Amino acid sequence: MTAIRFKLLIIFLVFFCSFFCARAQELNWTEVQPGIWKGQTGKVENYDLIKASGAEPFTEGLQKLPKTDFPIGKEAIKTQIIDGKTYLRLPLEKGEQIYGLGLNFQTIHQRGKVLRLHVDHFGGKDNGRTHAPVPFYVSSKGYGIFINTSRYIDIYVGTAVRKDSNHAGEAKDRNTDKAWTSRPYSDAVEILVAAQGLEFFVFSGPKPLDAIKRYNLFFGGGPLPPRWGLGFTQRVKSLYTAADVEKEVEEFKQKGYPLDFIGLEPGWQSKSYPCTFEWDKGRYPDPKSFVTGLLNKGVRLNLWTNPYISPDASFYQKILPFTGSHTVWSGVVPDLQTTQARDILFGQMQKDQVSLGVSGYKIDEVDGYDHYLWPDVATFPSGISAEQMRQTYGVLMQRYSTEMFKKLNQRTYGLVRASNAGANSFPYVIYDDYYNHEDFITALINSGYSGVLWTPEVRASKNPEEWLRRMQTVIFSPMAMINAWSSSTKPWSFPEVALQVKEMALLRMEMMPYWYSEFAKYHFEGLPPFRGMSLEDGFSAEAVKIKNKTNLEDNPYEEALTKEIKDQYMAGENLLVAPLFTGQKSRKVVLPKGKWYDFFTGAYAGDGEVITVEPGLDKIPVYVKDGGIIPMMKARLNAPRGNEKTDLEIRYYGTAPGKYTLYDDDGESYNYEKGQYSFREIQVALSGGVLKGSIADAPKGKPNTIGKIVFKQMTKP
Amino acid sequence: MTAIRFKLLIIFLVFFCSFFCARAQELNWTEVQPGIWKGQTGKVENYDLIKASGAEPFTEGLQKLPKTDFPIGKEAIKTQIIDGKTYLRLPLEKGEQIYGLGLNFQTIHQRGKVLRLHVDHFGGKDNGRTHAPVPFYVSSKGYGIFINTSRYIDIYVGTAVRKDSNHAGEAKDRNTDKAWTSRPYSDAVEILVAAQGLEFFVFSGPKPLDAIKRYNLFFGGGPLPPRWGLGFTQRVKSLYTAADVEKEVEEFKQKGYPLDFIGLEPGWQSKSYPCTFEWDKGRYPDPKSFVTGLLNKGVRLNLWTNPYISPDASFYQKILPFTGSHTVWSGVVPDLQTTQARDILFGQMQKDQVSLGVSGYKIDEVDGYDHYLWPDVATFPSGISAEQMRQTYGVLMQRYSTEMFKKLNQRTYGLVRASNAGANSFPYVIYDDYYNHEDFITALINSGYSGVLWTPEVRASKNPEEWLRRMQTVIFSPMAMINAWSSSTKPWSFPEVALQVKEMALLRMEMMPYWYSEFAKYHFEGLPPFRGMSLEDGFSAEAVKIKNKTNLEDNPYEEALTKEIKDQYMAGENLLVAPLFTGQKSRKVVLPKGKWYDFFTGAYAGDGEVITVEPGLDKIPVYVKDGGIIPMMKARLNAPRGNEKTDLEIRYYGTAPGKYTLYDDDGESYNYEKGQYSFREIQVALSGGVLKGSIADAPKGKPNTIGKIVFKQMTKP
Repeated sequence: MTAIRFKLLIIFLVFFCSFFCARAQELNWTEVQPGIWKGQTGKVENYDLIKASGAEPFTEGLQKLPKTDFPIGKEAIKTQIIDGKTYLRLPLEKGEQIYGLGLNFQTIHQRGKVLRLHVDHFGGKDNGRTHAPVPFYVSSKGYGIFINTSRYIDIYVGTAVRKDSNHAGEAKDRNTDKAWTSRPYSDAVEILVAAQGLEFFVFSGPKPLDAIKRYNLFFGGGPLPPRWGLGFTQRVKSLYTAADVEKEVEEFKQKGYPLDFIGLEPGWQSKSYPCTFEWDKGRYPDPKSFVTGLLNKGVRLNLWTNPYISPDASFYQKILPFTGSHTVWSGVVPDLQTTQARDILFGQMQKDQVSLGVSGYKIDEVDGYDHYLWPDVATFPSGISAEQMRQTYGVLMQRYSTEMFKKLNQRTYGLVRASNAGANSFPYVIYDDYYNHEDFITALINSGYSGVLWTPEVRASKNPEEWLRRMQTVIFSPMAMINAWSSSTKPWSFPEVALQVKEMALLRMEMMPYWYSEFAKYHFEGLPPFRGMSLEDGFSAEAVKIKNKTNLEDNPYEEALTKEIKDQYMAGENLLVAPLFTGQKSRKVVLPKGKWYDFFTGAYAGDGEVITVEPGLDKIPVYVKDGGIIPMMKARLNAPRGNEKTDLEIRYYGTAPGKYTLYDDDGESYNYEKGQYSFREIQVALSGGVLKGSIADAPKGKPNTIGKIVFKQMTKP
Repeated sequence: MTAIRFKLLIIFLVFFCSFFCARAQELNWTEVQPGIWKGQTGKVENYDLIKASGAEPFTEGLQKLPKTDFPIGKEAIKTQIIDGKTYLRLPLEKGEQIYGLGLNFQTIHQRGKVLRLHVDHFGGKDNGRTHAPVPFYVSSKGYGIFINTSRYIDIYVGTAVRKDSNHAGEAKDRNTDKAWTSRPYSDAVEILVAAQGLEFFVFSGPKPLDAIKRYNLFFGGGPLPPRWGLGFTQRVKSLYTAADVEKEVEEFKQKGYPLDFIGLEPGWQSKSYPCTFEWDKGRYPDPKSFVTGLLNKGVRLNLWTNPYISPDASFYQKILPFTGSHTVWSGVVPDLQTTQARDILFGQMQKDQVSLGVSGYKIDEVDGYDHYLWPDVATFPSGISAEQMRQTYGVLMQRYSTEMFKKLNQRTYGLVRASNAGANSFPYVIYDDYYNHEDFITALINSGYSGVLWTPEVRASKNPEEWLRRMQTVIFSPMAMINAWSSSTKPWSFPEVALQVKEMALLRMEMMPYWYSEFAKYHFEGLPPFRGMSLEDGFSAEAVKIKNKTNLEDNPYEEALTKEIKDQYMAGENLLVAPLFTGQKSRKVVLPKGKWYDFFTGAYAGDGEVITVEPGLDKIPVYVKDGGIIPMMKARLNAPRGNEKTDLEIRYYGTAPGKYTLYDDDGESYNYEKGQYSFREIQVALSGGVLKGSIADAPKGKPNTIGKIVFKQMTKP
């Protein structure tokens, strides 16, 4: 290089830097929706979670939320370029608690955590590596923060203490001072993203739940599953044949167990791991009549797949130019940011499966164990980096498979093993390989803080007790599923509890009107159908820190143990679910302020207190708010179809006057997006001890699937 | 910005990129030392592991190693800039095994791992986060690779398969093919470093051990501890007073347990966590006479500290401008890349402690738990990033504390909780809070592949058996230590095994001539004193993969279990140590080819075979090679001082003629660096069944501490 060229280079490097590096530290604010502000600093990247998901705000819903001001002190929010990365600092008050940051399995309170948000299977420790490491958190002070990047995110949630903080000098002598703590007060959430700029969003409340609603509505609101999606589903052993499946479907019917959709595992494909996306002609010689036959019996089909394409797939050569640099199990990885890869892959699925009547997919292994997934060194034709692809692959699979069904005006409801912010509105439920029942419930709670759905699926159990306890919780979750791909366990496999399991599965069906209305609220209002107690008015069981100094060898930093309420949750507007786990004979339930009633008997349970219950093996403790209304229908083996009319029993609990909005539409299509739906208000009150209930008329010209209505007073006067 | 400015910017961005991005992919090679090549690509950073350590090659030692050619195909080594990071690919043959990559605790074989090398405490899983995540690996094919960066390093050790690899298309159908594996053959190690360029080194063999020797010598060779460092050490309870310590020292003597140095824990400081670096005047009213008193009894002092400075330290205000942006336990973090911070901190240590006769330090908490350490968002006055500081802080503390002692021509031997490549020559032994005995031994094995030292310290035990088993292994390690900072356990605390423990501690002392010579070989030849069996000629127990298909629920990807030999190791040139763990009554020992003999009895044990031994609780199985020589001295309670003469017993095992080089110097100073040392050859052979031994004369003008010599034939004819 000549000296002149070198000088020119230097001059323009300086120019480049003075221009961009200076700008990078500016922070610009825009109110993008009512109560939602965008902060922007530096040079924002071309690909982020909003772009990956393609999600659009559900403005109609957002406009119904209360008007608010910017919820925190703007001057306490700092950005900076550090070591070529973007640094973001957000304030934390004393006593403030942080929830969210994705599908964590072991703790609900995130303050004090250091996380690297990174899509991965859950490895047994909450460290940011999870199926949905959603960069959204909600504060107990009533606001939410979302970081819009598809990079891995390092986040220090109130751990680090800056020298320039007012609290930095509060040193204590560990030798002699019993108040010494390994965790001095930190007044900030600090975030580092390896990008030259960053976009983030502040969601106001006033309550934490309002911030969550805004966050969900910002991404289009939650999904509205088809009615059948809220029924019962069984997944069968991998190498089942069409005849095996038909036999199993028949068995469900004969034995009187409900079944809305049945899931086929890898063996439906001619080759899998990597996949051909074609039926195996030996096990499934006539897919069309197989699928039709099941549909005629009211049973839909969900197909397992992962997105890694086998060299034996018919479209392998065609898709090859639009795949990443690395293979997964010797299959190629479609670059879903290219229209070509999408058209080829989803074209195949549409032509070969969906057009036959297949109703959904289980999208496996898009989270990745590091050793089988594409590495961070991989490249993709679209130019999206491996890291960004990893963070969003599950989102992309959800987005474009949903689109495929939407083109047919047909709702789907499936399973996926990776998600992220932006996928809030996609009709997919996350599952995994992990199988700790307690942690599954904690994940269910955390899903509600992060705009994702999670199923505490039932796979296998060591004994009838575990089987029943797991079944009791899965029916109070987004997807009531037995996943027997390996164990082949059926609902009746433990004869000792087969009847109780059947009762639970039928209860799931009876509650369908409730679940369906609650999911509609998720869609239209952003209210998560399953969520943590901290979001419930009148709940005040904060985390208790228990300091245990006795064993310094095991606990050298005298870390306080945190006791959190992470084993009870809200299911829909009115229900509090408090599961028991194997080995438990009794448990404590923290009831928020206000009267609560037993869901099954209507009996008074307590008011703003901690009760201890001993429900026996057959029962899962579930409570209803005073004035709570639960619309139910008769037990049945499949969800009502299309515009089929269904009689309702409106259960009413307690003594306070109650209101409930019942949702209705055709249950299957996207016509609700064109206004073909109704919310009908139910009102219930006692008048001189006598129950008086009413329901608003069905609006004219809208679908109406409600048949006869009966009101039932559950709480004995 | 005007349109013209924008156009100019674009033009020069293109210019900038065409200039730099193109250059970045070039790879330049230089042979920097015999058998050591440097590869360089892109724009190398200003701060790396070599610069942090300041280490210089020990060229004299390097020149003695065999001449070799570049050991792998250069054309298979690829570099590229991907997503703004530097990508490096190195080839892997089928059947090739990879060792090293730092202080791993659970596996020795690294092939198949995905690691993010990141200084941290060991969290229970080998994932790259460890006290010494050394970016050096050695291949079974006889070469080594070192990545010279102080960034975190993502490394895929033969996991990922590229589409352009010859093996990419070897897809298998998991549905029906029993040969399906979740881990198809990968032909590369792939590395990603978030930097615009990279420097790395290739070390030739021809044997793996030669590559390790080159690596150690490249960084100055291993440390040569003072003789007393290889004696026995006890650490006392945190709040001990001077009188408590003196009493304990007296007790060791009275009871006849050896003690060369004693370690004080945080309570010696007036305040700690964060630290004042000053004696507590209550517990230690007269440090000078306290230290002198101990020295007179032949016992040296080691002081615990972490580097975080208390606001109550006398030099707090002075050091404040040279500290990082974040505090640790409300103490400030010296920026050790500034001379000011170094001068202030080590000046204080020198003046207040070392000048009084303190012999070393235990440098704690420089590895960090993420929640207490400075976060990656921190900044330092020197401009070194938080990440780079994290990767090298332990190295810097070792480097500059060693310098402090070296200025006094006085060797030290201490403890440290973080290290990295480049620190190979520093006299520090790594320890941690974790306490799994089996994993401690695996770590000891791995230390030898990574140029670090590790002690499987004894802290507490559940029962006498565990106490004795742990003691049996710690005396065959770089530091024979009881660390009773919390438990206050003494060697005699379990009366049932107190005698056996004493015997072990005394054996450590008897073996001092052997240990000292072996450490000299570490220094002068780069031969790690503790190392894995794979480096031993004639050892052939490769990892066995055991495929277990029975439980897909627990093992959904049918991961094969790897059975490795990770519980036996080489200690010095001639010893094979095969510890037993609590609960074990017998164990298998894999003996390499050649005859092996029992260390204690001299009896023949086996030849290239797997033997099963049942040694009883009192004995740790240790074996000596045929012709092996172990120089020993009489049991004593403290190491010989300075030029004190010591009588030797030269033990000889087996029947083959034997050679051994015995090292000698003053045992305390750095005069050996000026040639004040000798290696004296010992030769032993049987002549008509009669033992004939000889030792070379002591070279004139060199230190000579060898007194009378007795040869002992251990193997009965």
